[in-house]
Amino acid sequence: METCGLTAEYNPFHRGHARQLELIRETFGRDVGIVVCLSGPFCQHGVPAMLDKGERANIALSHGADLVIELPQAFALASAERFAEGAIGILRSTGVVRHIAYGSEYPEGRNAICEAAEFLADEPEELYDNILDGIRDGKGFAASRSDAVAGLTGNARHKAILEAPNSILAVEYEKALRKQRRETEDSGTDDNATSHEIETIALPLFDKQIQSSTAVRRVVSWAKYRTSEDVSGSTYSLLEVFRHLSSVLTHDSAAAVMKALAEGRGLVTEEMIASSLLLSPHFRDVEALKEINGMQGGLAERLCGVLRDDPLNVLRHGERTHDQEISLPYDRFIREMATRTHPASRVRRAILASAFNIRNDDTALCHDDPQYIRVLGFTRRGRRLLSFMRHTAALPVLMSASDARSLETESARRQAKLDLYAQAWWNHFASLHDVDEFKRSAIILK
Amino acid sequence: METCGLTAEYNPFHRGHARQLELIRETFGRDVGIVVCLSGPFCQHGVPAMLDKGERANIALSHGADLVIELPQAFALASAERFAEGAIGILRSTGVVRHIAYGSEYPEGRNAICEAAEFLADEPEELYDNILDGIRDGKGFAASRSDAVAGLTGNARHKAILEAPNSILAVEYEKALRKQRRETEDSGTDDNATSHEIETIALPLFDKQIQSSTAVRRVVSWAKYRTSEDVSGSTYSLLEVFRHLSSVLTHDSAAAVMKALAEGRGLVTEEMIASSLLLSPHFRDVEALKEINGMQGGLAERLCGVLRDDPLNVLRHGERTHDQEISLPYDRFIREMATRTHPASRVRRAILASAFNIRNDDTALCHDDPQYIRVLGFTRRGRRLLSFMRHTAALPVLMSASDARSLETESARRQAKLDLYAQAWWNHFASLHDVDEFKRSAIILK
Repeated sequence: METCGLTAEYNPFHRGHARQLELIRETFGRDVGIVVCLSGPFCQHGVPAMLDKGERANIALSHGADLVIELPQAFALASAERFAEGAIGILRSTGVVRHIAYGSEYPEGRNAICEAAEFLADEPEELYDNILDGIRDGKGFAASRSDAVAGLTGNARHKAILEAPNSILAVEYEKALRKQRRETEDSGTDDNATSHEIETIALPLFDKQIQSSTAVRRVVSWAKYRTSEDVSGSTYSLLEVFRHLSSVLTHDSAAAVMKALAEGRGLVTEEMIASSLLLSPHFRDVEALKEINGMQGGLAERLCGVLRDDPLNVLRHGERTHDQEISLPYDRFIREMATRTHPASRVRRAILASAFNIRNDDTALCHDDPQYIRVLGFTRRGRRLLSFMRHTAALPVLMSASDARSLETESARRQAKLDLYAQAWWNHFASLHDVDEFKRSAIILK
Repeated sequence: METCGLTAEYNPFHRGHARQLELIRETFGRDVGIVVCLSGPFCQHGVPAMLDKGERANIALSHGADLVIELPQAFALASAERFAEGAIGILRSTGVVRHIAYGSEYPEGRNAICEAAEFLADEPEELYDNILDGIRDGKGFAASRSDAVAGLTGNARHKAILEAPNSILAVEYEKALRKQRRETEDSGTDDNATSHEIETIALPLFDKQIQSSTAVRRVVSWAKYRTSEDVSGSTYSLLEVFRHLSSVLTHDSAAAVMKALAEGRGLVTEEMIASSLLLSPHFRDVEALKEINGMQGGLAERLCGVLRDDPLNVLRHGERTHDQEISLPYDRFIREMATRTHPASRVRRAILASAFNIRNDDTALCHDDPQYIRVLGFTRRGRRLLSFMRHTAALPVLMSASDARSLETESARRQAKLDLYAQAWWNHFASLHDVDEFKRSAIILK
């Protein structure tokens, strides 16, 4: 069977995502088995998934995915590099994925993406010197890196690629593939799961601008915030929200969001969790905070300073302004905290890491490779992939949370525990107190 | 001016409390100045105050108190011994309190209370040996202590006193008075604030059984829980709640609770904060948890073990039973965790200490004396007391949270920060996100 894997967050699933799945089927043929590696309850930008991972898996299956597996939180809540390493590692470890697709602002520039990845994977020493020079000159990390790479390769295209958000991830996927391939070669292992070559394919982004998940999240955050805080003068009524969602999301995705909004359960926005994040006991102890992953380089001190007296005060000032573009309270706070060296996503992730007690020295969560493949759902074709995987998978395949109890390594158990804990957090804020993660079974789409 | 101080939580204020204030006025004359030292947002049993401290201060002033000052959280959330030391220390430090009143199951037994206190204040070595023997025999701390004291003093009355909840506190007040008096004598300081003798008076409890604050909290917890979880089959409708409250509380206290219930803001029960308490990152790290105040002696290990997989699972099992006496989820969890050496209140306080990051080695919060007198409200007579205090007070008098910024010692600032943080927690769960503690001013009852 021809197969293609991809990484996704579907936060939320929009028409561009549906179009991407169609395009994969057009490219590889009607019978291609599509494997999606999906972020769990919290995503790479440091924000909660709006909808439950089961709901998102279900929608993906309806739109052409055949097997949805979960990217554990130890990778989903990490830097682009570790996110990509985790996702590629899991897709490879299935032993059934022959192709990997990714979206890029430069779909015709796959060669340049690969060159940049190759160059970065070699980790040439002068690269790091040049990046450091750039940072000393006052540039951020991403800009310093793109300048340094383009300067050393002499290819201006690399600069453009390394400054476009989706292409940055594309480069990380290619880099992770190269590194993991080398490791397999070096270690001399030749098991079925990892020995084959995986081909990549770059896909265009569809109407990226208007279908941006970020924009949808902002609209829904406002709708939710308005309901909870009874803010007058905000722009969106529920009907307007529905109109906006219908124009951007697929029908089932829009319906799922509206249902959750109407029922007041099953949906989480970062504004809903903001107070609890900032009330974390870690912000009362700067020394403990400095040991949390991502809090280094002065961020711990800055946050403790600002949250010192009344941690919720930062969510209060000016929250009643009418300009919705700038004034969601937590979003505004994060922007105020962000700097060149600590962009907003890094600040968000570090704050979530405090809530989840992810320490910098936690090898299992911050350094180890993926340790298991958690299945969220599958179609009839996906079931065939799963039965192949019984022979090909290089990692234990978990069909439910309770399967994690049989994991053998300490590292695997720690990663699985973080998944459970993050899900408990998510369920709490989604008002799903009656939902037991141990009773979740994989979704089967006939 | 004749003056009398007392310690209270008013959680909530009931008719017995009103009667107690009347009795003090009957005892000392119409013009007595009554000073109440009131617990802030979290109370000694390890539970949140149902109503805001300002609301409770206001009600106390309406019923005869003249000056309400706050017992800082560093004492309000501590063992009976430290609670009493803090309260007595603050009342003495005003320099205006000549008498201290306390309630007891044995109001005619003040002499025996004083004897027991005197005996305990001397800390005789054989007492500790005997207490340890009792614990080794399988008795709890309180029972071992009452047996040991009665055995050594030969007075069976002491045993009864040391096993009755209000009298245990009464003994602690008398003990704290004796210890602090000795310290003042030993140090040779003779300032106006602390040199005078304070007389004590034991008051009867009024209809203790039916007016129990615990029973009221349970009724309100159920009403609130039923609203939030939409539990069918529970016993109380809002009307029934009102009937119950009206029969036990003063009219203004019942009205304040009903108003908060109806508006859905301004009221906190422990069931409302339970999920957030159990989602604290400390429960993911047993070594860090063992350093939290009150988590020693195996409690940290036991809690981490139970909360390991899905921390909210403990709130889930059997929550739909109809027997309201036993089945509020957090209450049930605490009962399951409680043991002879860790009674329910200690477990509750230790869990709150994790949420607030109160470490065992935090000298300011766990060992130091009170450092300031925060004024919550006063009457015309209370204003006169305050003007005396300008000359007599041994500690800085704070009229608002921002006054704490001028506190000079690190210990004072740490205690004040904990007060602010606990209040931010309380406000968050009371849905008072728009309330700024720095804008709270003392209540003035004309």
